[in-house]
Amino acid sequence: MNAEIIAIGSELLTPYRQDTNSLFLTGKLNQLGIEVSFKTIVGDRRADLVSVARTALSRADLIIFMGGLGPTEDDLTRECVAETLGRPLQRDAKIVEDLRARFASRGWTMSENNAQQGDIIPGAEVLDNKRGSAPGQFVQIEDAVARKIIILLPGPPHELTAMFEQQCMERLQKLVPVRHIAMRELKIAMIGESMADKRAAAIYTKHAGVETTILAGSPGEVQLHLRAQAESLEEAQKKVDVLASALEDEFEDAIFSTQGESLEQIAGYYLGMREATLAVAESCTGGLLAERITSVPGSSRYFLGGAVVYDNSVKTSLADVPPLMIAEHGAVSSQVAAALAEGIRKRCHATLGVGITGVAGPGGGTEEKPVGLVFAALADENHTEVVERKFPGDRDRIRHWATQLALDMVRRKLM
Amino acid sequence: MNAEIIAIGSELLTPYRQDTNSLFLTGKLNQLGIEVSFKTIVGDRRADLVSVARTALSRADLIIFMGGLGPTEDDLTRECVAETLGRPLQRDAKIVEDLRARFASRGWTMSENNAQQGDIIPGAEVLDNKRGSAPGQFVQIEDAVARKIIILLPGPPHELTAMFEQQCMERLQKLVPVRHIAMRELKIAMIGESMADKRAAAIYTKHAGVETTILAGSPGEVQLHLRAQAESLEEAQKKVDVLASALEDEFEDAIFSTQGESLEQIAGYYLGMREATLAVAESCTGGLLAERITSVPGSSRYFLGGAVVYDNSVKTSLADVPPLMIAEHGAVSSQVAAALAEGIRKRCHATLGVGITGVAGPGGGTEEKPVGLVFAALADENHTEVVERKFPGDRDRIRHWATQLALDMVRRKLM
Repeated sequence: MNAEIIAIGSELLTPYRQDTNSLFLTGKLNQLGIEVSFKTIVGDRRADLVSVARTALSRADLIIFMGGLGPTEDDLTRECVAETLGRPLQRDAKIVEDLRARFASRGWTMSENNAQQGDIIPGAEVLDNKRGSAPGQFVQIEDAVARKIIILLPGPPHELTAMFEQQCMERLQKLVPVRHIAMRELKIAMIGESMADKRAAAIYTKHAGVETTILAGSPGEVQLHLRAQAESLEEAQKKVDVLASALEDEFEDAIFSTQGESLEQIAGYYLGMREATLAVAESCTGGLLAERITSVPGSSRYFLGGAVVYDNSVKTSLADVPPLMIAEHGAVSSQVAAALAEGIRKRCHATLGVGITGVAGPGGGTEEKPVGLVFAALADENHTEVVERKFPGDRDRIRHWATQLALDMVRRKLM
Repeated sequence: MNAEIIAIGSELLTPYRQDTNSLFLTGKLNQLGIEVSFKTIVGDRRADLVSVARTALSRADLIIFMGGLGPTEDDLTRECVAETLGRPLQRDAKIVEDLRARFASRGWTMSENNAQQGDIIPGAEVLDNKRGSAPGQFVQIEDAVARKIIILLPGPPHELTAMFEQQCMERLQKLVPVRHIAMRELKIAMIGESMADKRAAAIYTKHAGVETTILAGSPGEVQLHLRAQAESLEEAQKKVDVLASALEDEFEDAIFSTQGESLEQIAGYYLGMREATLAVAESCTGGLLAERITSVPGSSRYFLGGAVVYDNSVKTSLADVPPLMIAEHGAVSSQVAAALAEGIRKRCHATLGVGITGVAGPGGGTEEKPVGLVFAALADENHTEVVERKFPGDRDRIRHWATQLALDMVRRKLM
């Protein structure tokens, strides 16, 4: 069974608003083993809405319409779906009376346009709206050709989520064959997308029973999403596990996460496990490394702090880099990266110190030290490791790559 | 002329990912007077993609496909659009050679699957991808029945935005009837959305000729988008300007930007103009303030650096906060915020120093110092100002609110 989710509202076709209900609905449908094949967004225009409804009926088994159930002239969903199904709306007197009572209980008089919220597609089950005025509808169509399920839900998220969870999930469960779905997300650090795909495809193409999606995450991160269906959850889980472990053999320790954790969470996890503490001194990344580390709740257990050493004088005053070293080798150099890592480690009395220096651009690049050149250093009590890389992309991407490199160095050191 | 935007990728049909490119594209199209009538999201399945392309051709004049242009087996957009148009793909040898050279320049060998990125729809203009490997395509179809424009863009946002701005806007401008549209974006700092809306609505509802959208930006920021159409650009501009200045009278200096600039850009602009320098010491925001400041290219002119003073010992070692002050008042206190601002200012020899301390949560709150409590301080040579606020929301939102407060204090000090 495949589904199409349709969001209705001209405001969703502006640069400013976005449908988010479909993410919630997709999660719920996937739990039932229903795949979403299409999502469509359409405005409050009769002809467009009818065209969208017609197309959906031709390609999906389950169609969920969200929005356009209110009392205004722009609320056309009921009418257009009824027209597409060839089942003219019938007004349900009881719903209208309930609406009138609802208004009266607040001391208001219901304006007559509200009555259209009682218009029902013949054969539909009415879905009560406990958090708003527009009821939903649940329609089953069964003819010689196909069976379709059509659901009309109100647009406001708090109305939609309650109505779907309380009144649609159980109905759907009875109508769809039971499917069990297992999922897994592998994250790979510091390998480019096409190289990662090449190595992964050689493996996942041999596991036809598992749907694999490769996805470039933030710079320096590739994600592999695995998903399998089976008669039992154990069986589905087994399919996913077999592929996951084949991929883990291929990528070895470049895979940093198998349960969706971020690299900063994993680095933090290892720091906590080793009872190690961390301090960082960052130049070109300008605070992004510290920001990523501290975005993890509880990071104060292992992260002591650090310095954003943008100006050269601050490299000296906060991380004790000798001014002569900067004069001799330049601020972007392996020597300064190492000195930053060692300096901040000592200043903060941390187990590990990280230093980053580079050219994030767009200005400041030279032939010898181009935009994208980054040195990252990791120091412990006895040893300092420096890695030099040339990263592609714009300022944001170079900064992100650089923090990814540093976090990955911390992870590899401790794992 | 109406448009359909189609996002391609099975990951966009999971509960985890959402198309955001279409918001950017809608903004750009609206500038040209082109309305978006449909948005569709479809997975990496051949039959589905062809069906979506066919439907779009039947109902839109301009169709933009995003994603599915990469080198993997899942990248089917070129093929499916070509099939729908009945124009079989032709491989462009020059594109393939350029790709090979691009790989070689990085010391890599191109794997052969990359060559499919050189497959072009006959008649298409090739759109260079300066930020990635997959080129885009711009196709005009003109027959007895209709004229259609079809654009293929890569999915990664930084590739898509550059390609669309630099290579599609001008091409489209030549092809669509001239419409005159004026737009304005006012950004308001540190006023909540519903309060801002209440005050703004009293004004914009009186200006029927201007479409006004109010939008909650990141925490601590509300945006008012104004848009007017008219016979001439001057007339459209005038409508927008009249409303904008009425809104500026209402909100006064809470409006920090009228041309889309971010608060960190505006604060940086004032710092540059006053030839002032800045240093920051941040605790609960963990580097986010420095990260926002340094995300602006050229920020090294006014930003010297700072300290992320997570652990109390680091508040002392990097920003000279007296340990006794922390023991007496607690790390989250107006005294410590002031000492951080003053300490980091002196350490870095900056004109202005900022200090932030607070409880970002989710843990660490007490009755006296609950989650969301933040102190921000701004020090110059003679004076230190401290502001205490209690911010709503989760860890991310509280951290963002706190940096917004600090940046707004810098702006107000210098404006």
